[in-house]
Amino acid sequence: MVYTTKRILLDKRPSGFPAVENFSIDTVTLPQLNEGEILIKIKYLSVDPYMRNRMNKAKSYIEPYETGQPISGDGIAEVLESKNEEYKSGDIISAIVPWQEYAILSGNPYKIPSADNYITEYLGILGLTGLTAYFGLNKIAFPRSGETMVISGAAGAVGMAAGQMAKIYGCRVIGIAGSDEKCAFLKNTLKFDTALNYKTSKNLRKAVKQAAPDGVDIYFDNVGGEISDSIMYLLNDFSRIVLCGQIALYNQNRLSLGPRLNSLLLIHRVKMQGFIVYDYRDEFPAAREQISEWLKNGKLINRETVISGFDQILTAFLNLFQGKNTGKMIVKIA
Amino acid sequence: MVYTTKRILLDKRPSGFPAVENFSIDTVTLPQLNEGEILIKIKYLSVDPYMRNRMNKAKSYIEPYETGQPISGDGIAEVLESKNEEYKSGDIISAIVPWQEYAILSGNPYKIPSADNYITEYLGILGLTGLTAYFGLNKIAFPRSGETMVISGAAGAVGMAAGQMAKIYGCRVIGIAGSDEKCAFLKNTLKFDTALNYKTSKNLRKAVKQAAPDGVDIYFDNVGGEISDSIMYLLNDFSRIVLCGQIALYNQNRLSLGPRLNSLLLIHRVKMQGFIVYDYRDEFPAAREQISEWLKNGKLINRETVISGFDQILTAFLNLFQGKNTGKMIVKIA
Repeated sequence: MVYTTKRILLDKRPSGFPAVENFSIDTVTLPQLNEGEILIKIKYLSVDPYMRNRMNKAKSYIEPYETGQPISGDGIAEVLESKNEEYKSGDIISAIVPWQEYAILSGNPYKIPSADNYITEYLGILGLTGLTAYFGLNKIAFPRSGETMVISGAAGAVGMAAGQMAKIYGCRVIGIAGSDEKCAFLKNTLKFDTALNYKTSKNLRKAVKQAAPDGVDIYFDNVGGEISDSIMYLLNDFSRIVLCGQIALYNQNRLSLGPRLNSLLLIHRVKMQGFIVYDYRDEFPAAREQISEWLKNGKLINRETVISGFDQILTAFLNLFQGKNTGKMIVKIA
Repeated sequence: MVYTTKRILLDKRPSGFPAVENFSIDTVTLPQLNEGEILIKIKYLSVDPYMRNRMNKAKSYIEPYETGQPISGDGIAEVLESKNEEYKSGDIISAIVPWQEYAILSGNPYKIPSADNYITEYLGILGLTGLTAYFGLNKIAFPRSGETMVISGAAGAVGMAAGQMAKIYGCRVIGIAGSDEKCAFLKNTLKFDTALNYKTSKNLRKAVKQAAPDGVDIYFDNVGGEISDSIMYLLNDFSRIVLCGQIALYNQNRLSLGPRLNSLLLIHRVKMQGFIVYDYRDEFPAAREQISEWLKNGKLINRETVISGFDQILTAFLNLFQGKNTGKMIVKIA
């Protein structure tokens, strides 16, 4: 059978905030399958802040997107045709896929067990965002029971997972988010000890200080910029900063300026460390098992913002930078 | 016998750079010795950048100096009278002492073995600055043979020690200092691979890049500020930043601004960590033994800038912030 598919291509690299003008859409016919390949129908796509970095030309920890080529990212798909004996028609897989309706893949994508009740969870809490939270905590923060952790971007996919995991580890958890609705969700549904709306807080540093009477032992940073500055003054001796995301900085054309705070890190013997979830690829299976167990016994709650329709992909992606998602932002394609 | 002594007191806390006006000098008569005390004649005083921080009111990792009280710091002294059976007249000790000619001490200061050829070394390479270099390397940087380390403030007491130790560990060492004379010393006497004068370098980042063709694995930061900024762009994946000093920032009334560079730390999975040498107090004897061995077999060279006279203490201290010392700045009192 012959398949045609729409594709979303990077047309012109964005400078500052990306806009629909940076992308183009075309339609192509897919070639016949070669040996070892599978043809997939894409069901769900993940849109994530890190993708903005890949739209720059500079090489980062991951190759930049090529102009004139499809954007790609995490996705869930159904196998329609297979010339790879590991997969058969009807299998559901999780893989890095192009922003298309149909695609041809080689390699060996992860086959989601059919006994498993989880599907879109593999784009979030059981996927890269859940794993990011898990490894940020277990490889850098080393949370101890009774410690206080502050999370910025707390209602995002990573923040939500990190906060709940820190609760499991016995920490007092303070989340910072951008709306009262998100804060209510963090506090009432996810049982964070405190949730602070940075947009309406007149003095965030003071508010965090009030919520963290014993100071801050861990700062799980998803945003960078001024929100992070306000935490720096509250760090305890031997505290840890997990540099997980810097969404406040991703869309800047030039480096913005901020106060030089390294003296505080020195005096308090703070460790600040960046990490990339892929560095721990070998430990993904064990981590997924743990996360899956927490999900099953109700210790972790998953939350997604799902938008439907291939034509909504760009809107969903751009909305990330407006803070319009609570939890994992997912686009349902088919 | 009755002893009178000059003392240097903190009169008014400095705002910005300290000046002689912030201090006062008086003369007092010392009381009779109580049981357990010793009376000492101070021979050498150490002046160090960290003392500037103690002149602020805010509590740091160490108590602030009190106004109206003597400044204190590392010193070498001779015991004149003793009511402590551990010490006898003529013993040479290393201890935290007030900026005085004579003083009364309790507690149990370190007695320098009389068989030991080292005296002022206990204020530098065998004292807190040498130990600072040692623990910064061994507790945070973890240097591996073949790696490249950049040191700022390289001709200072800590920088000089850290660079030589990194050479012992097999690193390529690039030192940044503030005069051609210092650079010549680093390169010719201490055998650093490269020494760069930041004051005459038109583009420090480019100069370091040229000297570090494989990138920077360790940045041993004694200064902070713009010099440090220029290194951030050259950091390799999994590199380490030892936050050891921030002399560029010590004399600021308000926080200065700098570019927000945490995205670079994230992308390259950099670990930046502050430390204080006192955190490793239990390991001082073992470290001193190692440093002493390196000194004896010529692998480490000690360098001091010695200024003579009690009345020169303030000048020596203030000169630290003008970069006038090469190696450890010491005042010879008697």
